[in-house]
Order: sequence, then C-alpha cells, then structure tokens
Amino acid sequence: MSLDRLLVKIAETQNPTVAGLDPKLSYVPEYIKAEAFEKYGVNLKGAAKALYKFNKGLIDALCDIVPAIKPQCAYYEMYGYQGVKTLYKTMEYARKKGMFVITDGKRNDIGTTMEAYAAGHLGTVAVEDEEFTPFGGDALTVNGYLGTDGIAPLIEICDRHDKGIFVLCKTSNPSSGELQDRLIDGKPVYEIMGEMCEHWGKDLLGQYGYSGVGAVVGATYPEQLKELREKLPHTFFLVPGYGAQGGGAKDVAGAFDQNGLGAIVNSSRGIMCAYQKEGCDEHDYAQAARREALRMKQDIMQHVGTIRL
Amino acid sequence: MSLDRLLVKIAETQNPTVAGLDPKLSYVPEYIKAEAFEKYGVNLKGAAKALYKFNKGLIDALCDIVPAIKPQCAYYEMYGYQGVKTLYKTMEYARKKGMFVITDGKRNDIGTTMEAYAAGHLGTVAVEDEEFTPFGGDALTVNGYLGTDGIAPLIEICDRHDKGIFVLCKTSNPSSGELQDRLIDGKPVYEIMGEMCEHWGKDLLGQYGYSGVGAVVGATYPEQLKELREKLPHTFFLVPGYGAQGGGAKDVAGAFDQNGLGAIVNSSRGIMCAYQKEGCDEHDYAQAARREALRMKQDIMQHVGTIRL
Repeated sequence: MSLDRLLVKIAETQNPTVAGLDPKLSYVPEYIKAEAFEKYGVNLKGAAKALYKFNKGLIDALCDIVPAIKPQCAYYEMYGYQGVKTLYKTMEYARKKGMFVITDGKRNDIGTTMEAYAAGHLGTVAVEDEEFTPFGGDALTVNGYLGTDGIAPLIEICDRHDKGIFVLCKTSNPSSGELQDRLIDGKPVYEIMGEMCEHWGKDLLGQYGYSGVGAVVGATYPEQLKELREKLPHTFFLVPGYGAQGGGAKDVAGAFDQNGLGAIVNSSRGIMCAYQKEGCDEHDYAQAARREALRMKQDIMQHVGTIRL
Repeated sequence: MSLDRLLVKIAETQNPTVAGLDPKLSYVPEYIKAEAFEKYGVNLKGAAKALYKFNKGLIDALCDIVPAIKPQCAYYEMYGYQGVKTLYKTMEYARKKGMFVITDGKRNDIGTTMEAYAAGHLGTVAVEDEEFTPFGGDALTVNGYLGTDGIAPLIEICDRHDKGIFVLCKTSNPSSGELQDRLIDGKPVYEIMGEMCEHWGKDLLGQYGYSGVGAVVGATYPEQLKELREKLPHTFFLVPGYGAQGGGAKDVAGAFDQNGLGAIVNSSRGIMCAYQKEGCDEHDYAQAARREALRMKQDIMQHVGTIRL
C-alpha cells in the first residue's frame, strides 16, 4: 500500500495538481446537454449521460499533462444511480487514459461497514466465485472521526491492491475551525488527526518516503499547511481550496518538501468552467480546461522548482 | 424541517426501533440468489437484483410493525452503480409501504458540495425545467467534522422538504473514543458535537419538542447515552450498536425521555439474519425477521413503557 503510483505520475508530468471532476449540469456546454437530452430524455439519465460526455472531453484534454482526477461523489449521487454510473464510467475512462483516480467520498463508518466501502471503492467484490471491481479508484478520501477501527479495514484492502487513502485533517471551508482548531491537551484537533495519519501509515512507507495514508489539508489555511508539512514528514497531502475557494499558489507553497514532493493541489471549478471564464466558444471547453490546467501548473511550479523522486 | 413524521410513526407502531438494511450477499437465501443469477448473470447486476428481492421481502414483513428502515450506503456501493440502483429501489419501495427512510451515508463535505448531497439524498434536482427525486430519503446521517458550513445546506433543503438529519456524536465502535472522548476545555468531543446539534436545531423544533437535527449515539456506550439525553433535550437520537455489536435493551434505556420518546434503536444483522440464527427454512427468512423485530420491540419496550406524543 502506498501512493507511489501517484508520486511517479506527478514526477513524470512535473505537475503536482489534480483535476477535480465535480460536474454540475450548469457547467456543461449546451451542445452536449442538447444531444444527451434528445437521445435519453430530459431526466436523470439524460443529465448523467451529459456529465459523462463532458468528463470524457476533459479527460482527453488533460490526461497527458495532469497526473490525476478527483471526482467528488456528491455531484454524481445528485443525479441518482444514473449519476453514480457516470462516476464509474468516468473513473474507468480516466484509468484507461493512464490517470490516477482519487475518489472524493469522505467515507467513514464502523469497521465492518468500512470493509464494504473499501471493497467497493478500492478493492474487489466476490459474486459467487468471481471477483468484480465495483468502482476501482486508486485512492479514497475518508473522515477519521471514528478512530482506528474505521481506518484499519481500508489499510488491509489498500495493501492488497496497492491503493491509498487521504484522511481529512484541516479542511478548506470557512467553519473548519469550529472543531478542527479546538485544542486537546494543547494541540489542535487537526494536528491530532495528522498524528494519527502518521501512526496509521508508519508501516506502509513507499519508496519515496511517503506512506499510503495521506491527509487532506486546505490551501485556504497556509500556516497550518506549512506547520503540518513539517510535523508529518511521511504523510502526503491532498490540498483542496486553490482557485475558486480562494487559495493561491503562494498559499500552497508550504505543502511541498525540498524535492518538490509532498502534496497534490486540486482545482475543480477553475478547470471545469475555464471556457465560461474565458468566454470562448463552448465547443472549445476541453481545450480551455487544458489551458487553465497548464496555467495552474505553471503558477504552482514557480514555488516548487523541479520535482525529484 | 423536523423528525415529526418519524415520531408519529414510532408512536403509531409503539415501536422505537429501525431495521438496518445492510445486506451482504451471504445474508441472502440461496433460492433468491439462484433466481437472480440465472436471470441476470453471476455479476454485480445479479447480486444487486438479489439484494433488492431480499430487501423487498423484509420490507413486506416489517412495514406494519417497524416504523423505519435504515439502509447503509456502503453495502450498496459495494456492488457498484448496480448496487446503488438497488438502494434507490429499496428506498422507493419502503416509502411506498409507508416506512420512514433514514439513509445511512455519514456524508460530509464543504458547503457547496453538501448542497449536492442534500439535493441528491433528501431533496430534488432540476434537469432543465423538471424536478426529479434522485433518492428521496426522509433523513440522512452526516458527519460534523467540517463544522457549520457543512451542515447549513442540509438544513435549508430539509426545511423545504420536511426532512431531517442525524449528526455523528458518539459512535458505537470500540475505537470511537480515540477522538470523541478527548477533552476540549474539559468537555469530551462527542458532547461538543452534541451541543452543536442543539445549536443547529434550535430554530427547527417540531411539534413534540425535538428538532430536525438528530444525533447518532451508540448503544455500546450506555453512560454517555444517558448523559447526552439529559444534556440535549431537543436532539432526537439514532442509536446503533444494539444486538450484534453488543448493546442490550438495558443499555439503550437511558436514551428515552419520560414520554418514551427521544430515540430510535437500530438493528441490522439481528433482523436480516434472523433465519440463519433460528435455523429455519430459508424461504421463511422474512417471517423470521418479523419474529426478531417483534422480540426486539418487546425487549426494548419493557424499559420504555408507553410511547406518548
């Protein structure tokens, strides 16, 4: 179990960013929606098919320059099981194109239930004597509020399939401090959660010094990001909050180590809606996303230098 | 927004319990699996169809004596989007039979993303000018680690559709104390989360004194359950951990108020696998579940007395 496959992709592309695929229908170009609605109807199925077509175009335009996608489950569940089918197909297509897939589900539960989530999202599931891959993500975001026995089943399955997890530590939203900044024995909750990540990952180190247990730390809290980078040397960070949420390249600089490793920065709306911001022809949405992804890469890399494995 | 529809169902049935529908394939009678595999193949679709048939039988046998079901998302996601379709159909069928549906997803995220979860699980979603109901749950379990702006979008949608939520406070698993029992200014984290539930629900009181913001508190921690009942007078409890996880009727007694209200106790494996425990013919699985549900009701009601609205 490790996140090494992700680290290798980051070094290959010299790009420590991930494209968040959180598609709302309002982000999708009219011509794609019109085609899907004509073929499948103005309903959840039609919407889900439009989202898939939109995602596919984005993946085609990004797969050689961006190492990973991060689909957010909520935006697929919003369109019912039809939307969840689009989640599966999007993940399958991205993997086929060589991208690393981080499923952003922030799942959490007791041990036996986490076994089911782990098998479904990262592992395989047996039906009679055959094994099937329900979603096939490479990593899953999780919430550690339930403690070790909500995490242990993930570790076992990640170990078997060479997958990883990212545990929420300091989230990017304005109210994250209500619980996460409160002090327990003089330490903020987010730091305690970070220490648990180090502890959970201690026997799962990959080749490049980082374990299979990563942490989510928001770009909107640059001081905490820098502080946690120093305190959690084996924990790789998934950093949301860049762009639309307000975090800039300077804010995420502290997330990286001296080799330019240590973090991957997410942008969702910035990339997906680049064509709307540019005001270009909607048929050009995928190339606009590529332009924005390259701009973001350059923006962040000026603070990172060269990425060396 | 409130949980009043649930409270009315509990009083009508004089039964403060909920059937957890967390179906593993190994719980499903062979005759149901054989039929599904023959018709749909030995694959995720066949498995999902078998689970649906199993659930349908349980709902038919329970709907006049048990007020609610609580499907656990993990056990459906485990079978991919095909499994998620079974989740939807199970929920639809239970609602048609008059049951209250609590979706156990423990969802959590930043505000904009929680809007998507709220719309998908509890509300409606627009496709062009038409509104659709992606899942149609009556309540959703959520994790409050992200603070108020991860909860606020739910409250807005719950208000519009008369739905409710249950926020994790003290979970039933052995390691729940690793974070939840730690002290912040002399108060355990679970109590702080409980106080946040009271705060979030303060303007959302229903007719019977309880708000639309409930809390999850495990049967496996009877002292904390009693303590929280006293400290959180407007917060209705969803209580997992009875039966297979080790909690008994005496352990949950403290969750109820003087009117026999205040909590609903979940049993999953105990009900679903009653036929295996009884050793009866597998064709009798649904009636065995009914017998166990009645036994559980009686077991808990001896500590509750009459339920009065």
